[in-house]
Amino acid sequence: MASSRRRFLTTMGAAAGGVAGLGRGADAWMAPTVSESPIPDTFSSSALLEARLRGELPAAGAGTSALQQDPRMPSAEEVASWYTDRRNWGRWGDNDQKGAVNLITPEKSAAAARLVQTGRRVSMSRIFEPEQHFMRKSSREGGSGAVVDYYGFIYHGQTITHIDALCHMWDSDGMWQGRDPDVEITTQGATFGTIDAWSDGIVTRGVLLDVPRHRGVDHVTPGNPVHGWELADIADAQGVELEPGDALLVYSGKDPYVRGGGDYGGGDRPGLSVTCAKFIRDHDVSLLGWDMMDARPDPYGLPYPVHGVLFNYGVALLDNALLEPLAEACAEEGRYEFMFMGLPLKVARGTGSPANPIAMF
Amino acid sequence: MASSRRRFLTTMGAAAGGVAGLGRGADAWMAPTVSESPIPDTFSSSALLEARLRGELPAAGAGTSALQQDPRMPSAEEVASWYTDRRNWGRWGDNDQKGAVNLITPEKSAAAARLVQTGRRVSMSRIFEPEQHFMRKSSREGGSGAVVDYYGFIYHGQTITHIDALCHMWDSDGMWQGRDPDVEITTQGATFGTIDAWSDGIVTRGVLLDVPRHRGVDHVTPGNPVHGWELADIADAQGVELEPGDALLVYSGKDPYVRGGGDYGGGDRPGLSVTCAKFIRDHDVSLLGWDMMDARPDPYGLPYPVHGVLFNYGVALLDNALLEPLAEACAEEGRYEFMFMGLPLKVARGTGSPANPIAMF
Amino acid sequence: MASSRRRFLTTMGAAAGGVAGLGRGADAWMAPTVSESPIPDTFSSSALLEARLRGELPAAGAGTSALQQDPRMPSAEEVASWYTDRRNWGRWGDNDQKGAVNLITPEKSAAAARLVQTGRRVSMSRIFEPEQHFMRKSSREGGSGAVVDYYGFIYHGQTITHIDALCHMWDSDGMWQGRDPDVEITTQGATFGTIDAWSDGIVTRGVLLDVPRHRGVDHVTPGNPVHGWELADIADAQGVELEPGDALLVYSGKDPYVRGGGDYGGGDRPGLSVTCAKFIRDHDVSLLGWDMMDARPDPYGLPYPVHGVLFNYGVALLDNALLEPLAEACAEEGRYEFMFMGLPLKVARGTGSPANPIAMF
Amino acid sequence: MASSRRRFLTTMGAAAGGVAGLGRGADAWMAPTVSESPIPDTFSSSALLEARLRGELPAAGAGTSALQQDPRMPSAEEVASWYTDRRNWGRWGDNDQKGAVNLITPEKSAAAARLVQTGRRVSMSRIFEPEQHFMRKSSREGGSGAVVDYYGFIYHGQTITHIDALCHMWDSDGMWQGRDPDVEITTQGATFGTIDAWSDGIVTRGVLLDVPRHRGVDHVTPGNPVHGWELADIADAQGVELEPGDALLVYSGKDPYVRGGGDYGGGDRPGLSVTCAKFIRDHDVSLLGWDMMDARPDPYGLPYPVHGVLFNYGVALLDNALLEPLAEACAEEGRYEFMFMGLPLKVARGTGSPANPIAMF
Repeated sequence: MASSRRRFLTTMGAAAGGVAGLGRGADAWMAPTVSESPIPDTFSSSALLEARLRGELPAAGAGTSALQQDPRMPSAEEVASWYTDRRNWGRWGDNDQKGAVNLITPEKSAAAARLVQTGRRVSMSRIFEPEQHFMRKSSREGGSGAVVDYYGFIYHGQTITHIDALCHMWDSDGMWQGRDPDVEITTQGATFGTIDAWSDGIVTRGVLLDVPRHRGVDHVTPGNPVHGWELADIADAQGVELEPGDALLVYSGKDPYVRGGGDYGGGDRPGLSVTCAKFIRDHDVSLLGWDMMDARPDPYGLPYPVHGVLFNYGVALLDNALLEPLAEACAEEGRYEFMFMGLPLKVARGTGSPANPIAMF
Repeated sequence: MASSRRRFLTTMGAAAGGVAGLGRGADAWMAPTVSESPIPDTFSSSALLEARLRGELPAAGAGTSALQQDPRMPSAEEVASWYTDRRNWGRWGDNDQKGAVNLITPEKSAAAARLVQTGRRVSMSRIFEPEQHFMRKSSREGGSGAVVDYYGFIYHGQTITHIDALCHMWDSDGMWQGRDPDVEITTQGATFGTIDAWSDGIVTRGVLLDVPRHRGVDHVTPGNPVHGWELADIADAQGVELEPGDALLVYSGKDPYVRGGGDYGGGDRPGLSVTCAKFIRDHDVSLLGWDMMDARPDPYGLPYPVHGVLFNYGVALLDNALLEPLAEACAEEGRYEFMFMGLPLKVARGTGSPANPIAMF
Repeated sequence: MASSRRRFLTTMGAAAGGVAGLGRGADAWMAPTVSESPIPDTFSSSALLEARLRGELPAAGAGTSALQQDPRMPSAEEVASWYTDRRNWGRWGDNDQKGAVNLITPEKSAAAARLVQTGRRVSMSRIFEPEQHFMRKSSREGGSGAVVDYYGFIYHGQTITHIDALCHMWDSDGMWQGRDPDVEITTQGATFGTIDAWSDGIVTRGVLLDVPRHRGVDHVTPGNPVHGWELADIADAQGVELEPGDALLVYSGKDPYVRGGGDYGGGDRPGLSVTCAKFIRDHDVSLLGWDMMDARPDPYGLPYPVHGVLFNYGVALLDNALLEPLAEACAEEGRYEFMFMGLPLKVARGTGSPANPIAMF
Repeated sequence: MASSRRRFLTTMGAAAGGVAGLGRGADAWMAPTVSESPIPDTFSSSALLEARLRGELPAAGAGTSALQQDPRMPSAEEVASWYTDRRNWGRWGDNDQKGAVNLITPEKSAAAARLVQTGRRVSMSRIFEPEQHFMRKSSREGGSGAVVDYYGFIYHGQTITHIDALCHMWDSDGMWQGRDPDVEITTQGATFGTIDAWSDGIVTRGVLLDVPRHRGVDHVTPGNPVHGWELADIADAQGVELEPGDALLVYSGKDPYVRGGGDYGGGDRPGLSVTCAKFIRDHDVSLLGWDMMDARPDPYGLPYPVHGVLFNYGVALLDNALLEPLAEACAEEGRYEFMFMGLPLKVARGTGSPANPIAMF
């Protein structure tokens, strides 16, 4: 069942629209757009690379911001290559829907359990207030009774802590495994890369990297995104080493940022740079959890700079996590590794699940 | 904030209606009833006991069924006393909302993690198909895009695997801690005994008791309910001992029963007898998980024979669990204890949560 | 089935809380409040009158605002008497649920049809965007197909044009007919005064009164509410006379007000004064349609100054109507009477219905 | 914005799949199908005609059933020609979204009002019980309060009386005006042929044709569908003549049929034959209301034999109407014409609306 989307570089056209689109920020991904018509495949890492080869993109480092002049900033070719050359499509079989969660073997889970010492547990979930929450009470003769409630919600977005399934996003090269979203996403649900692929739970070693603490600030700031090499530095400083199958939690201080008046929405915002994607792939992380998301704007014009680990690498995304209490607990415990338990609901055809992941020390 | 419901025996009236009501099955608890008006407090363990003392109830053993003539069957006084004399109200403070989950100390959770050997994981959740499941797709210029979905559902009932919060049920003596449901249950949500009391997760030792295997049958049958003394026998036979804070999973074979044509609904049905409540209290279980529920009819006329552990003992209920795969795994592993992970969503004012609990060996 | 709420003055206590409450604005009626516990019956027209008789209320005209010094402003006793002395409870039988819509006899409807001349039709509904609107598409072999959609919404409030059923509101004297909301409003729906009482449609003579045009302004302004005597003046000026059973549409210019930057929410706002209630009762109006609602603050401290016609007089309320196009059409046609068609959905146990009422000239 | 779907006969391929498909009933139109992928355009009136011309279809009358041997039964070519040759696409302009409702001019509406004599009103709506119906009550200090409710539902199907918008269905030639459903139907709503095209209301002359009364039976029976020539006979017998823009209500006795144990679902069922489509087009009906729907099976294998008037002729469909009370009223009044009022909600991007249409005599 090979998808027509699976085209990679060889079939990638170099339409002008794609290049023009490269300057566009990733702001609108949650905004409903009216058109769902087929669009030329020109907006992806492949397209980025093509454009770069044609000399249509400025070299990295040519930007005006100090940050972009950082010599560690990769060229557009390098960035594109992280996704196009290093995709995990096919790595666990062409029809695999688990992605990097395959790296969490029983042995890996068992090893995570052996990390437990004190049994201290910390939730990574924000308070969950379903947009539709209604009560129905039944009184029985004699004074006994029961109450049930109705929950209705779209959990994607920045309100509810949730886990994204691999089918949640795509670029012009396709969904996870190169599948075609026009085929796999129906109004009756998704047919590939759904959340129930992980219904045995994501139970693995968790590692938290505390960016603000390492920087000596309260939170990551706009214009100064978290970089992959910085994650490496923080791991070193914290004395932890990432291992294949780990759940990586990147704490950026979103709550202090918002408490301090910062706006964290669909526009420009602090967060992680695309260079984190390389770090994630280099270490074969199975799940990325974060409070801040992709930094905006992305200088390379990718639609989903770090979100791209979802469909390119098959990495589970724990979105909108509450990480401040966990960062505090790590500091108190003097440990940045713990047992990570993320148990998505077993939703048929679902693109993700609200979740209440727990770290246990 | 003491509740007017907290009356116990001293204030219990002996209305005829209550006694008449004793013969009524618990069938209708999920059925919406039109009236929500206050009703005289006459239908509870207290009422049962009062009636018994007045000689208005037949002695246990006087029933016509063979089962009721079992000499191990307790008298109505004994049954009533299990709830009225042994309630956990106030045990962890008058305002406590965690109930028996308090017994899961950090040490208890850590000990559960030490049970892990192979890392084999088994889900206890059925496939979850939200009654309202809708998709919204956003295509972006250039061919990338994302999809979000809407889940709407009432999770209580027999379709969705879920955890009941302590506020989910009550009898005429009140909710957990004796609180008044007319005060605590509002159309904007519940204000006491809500699911977020357990938002740090229910992570403890799990013990599965496999009733059909012990009986040498496929499933529990109507008219032959699981009894508390049988649970004790099974534990002995399986070589496990229940400890305070354990999650007790009682496998009755609901799936084989239904596959064989059995009806498992709101009418008469196989399941657990009220004598299991005593077993649960005797062993200070923190969570009861089951596939079959209270057997019906209940010879003592209690509205919620075993469900009553929820509001009387503060025991969490994992309702409508899928236990057949876990029973098979236990048999294969030759172990009936494991690490139990139940992570209810952190729903504000909620009466429970859908859940995907995982057992890890 | 007489309600315990039906107490009127004789049983009305004079609790301090009630009097203190009189100064409170009606701001919060749509805001969810946590408590649903029984509250002493002290806040109503009856209570207002009681308080006045005890000398606890300032006489009307003693206020500081120019408007309140208008000699036409009634005393608190007068205002209270409009509701307490002139309620329509029992007027059409004790169990009647149609209220003033009873005044729309077949003859009245037929006479409304005879008003039609040109056949010009004007909608009084705003665009309706259900908060939950989801699509489900089914493609069939061969290229044919169909699409269905899901609508989910709370229609009360200021977004959706809707008709309020008589059960939608109450004061401390009770709902329509003096029924008790604690009895009639259940979490499974309402059991009295529901919208299906009007399922044969509200088809009657409609009369629009155009307040801004009469005042020579774009819209009613804060602090200068529409008064009952002004409605009488406008009717005279427009050459129309209200008759029993008419649908009265009061155009206040909400849309021009909002376009000009005015805030129309839950706080202080322009609209209709309680004196309009007397006009409505004097003319035996069957339905009140409006774009602006009760003016706030209400100097008499009533919770629902004009909304009170709903439960006191049994008058249907067409809430959040779009009246600007109708006002324009009336001016163009030189006629302020027309055939009014309001066809609420036949919702069982519902407290109202979204609606698209049409005026035909 | 011409659609790629608008191909008509010239571009119609003659794939074998389409012919094979002709024997398939229309059973599944409401059933969700997983695939939404593009399918060859081979299943439509055009395809039917093409196949017939190639001799791939049996001539009408060659069937085994007595009914098909009726000499009045048209050939497949004739049936196909009713839709392909007589479509109303473009008749009111290429971008028109009102369809045959355009025939309801102001004069037509005014004339309908002049039909009113007694003012007797009859609802055509069944009781509407939204699948999600929840209450939210707000109590205010002092004892007053209000309640709002939430309605959530899919109104298409056979439970709720509703009006279908022109975008609700299509065949392989496309939607209304030949538009492409893959373009116009998005997960954010429909972009053409939506229900708000009729937001000024459908107010016109209504004519009821009472099939059971004419046949001298309680209801139409399986295997004996209503035919177009029968509708003509009934109109004659009832002394009414259909005129352009009329709302045609065809009463088939669904309620007596169901009360008598008849199954009215997605399988074979009594109802209207495709020959009614010709009658509808011949008389330029603007709205078709019915209690029974397309008879099944359809001997010509069309996916939507009579439903096809929606996208081919632009005729509004009042689906699942309650017509028994109206048929009784017509008989009592001795009149089969009346003022018809159908006021769909003004739903943005909606494919239809629940409705409570009223007939007034």
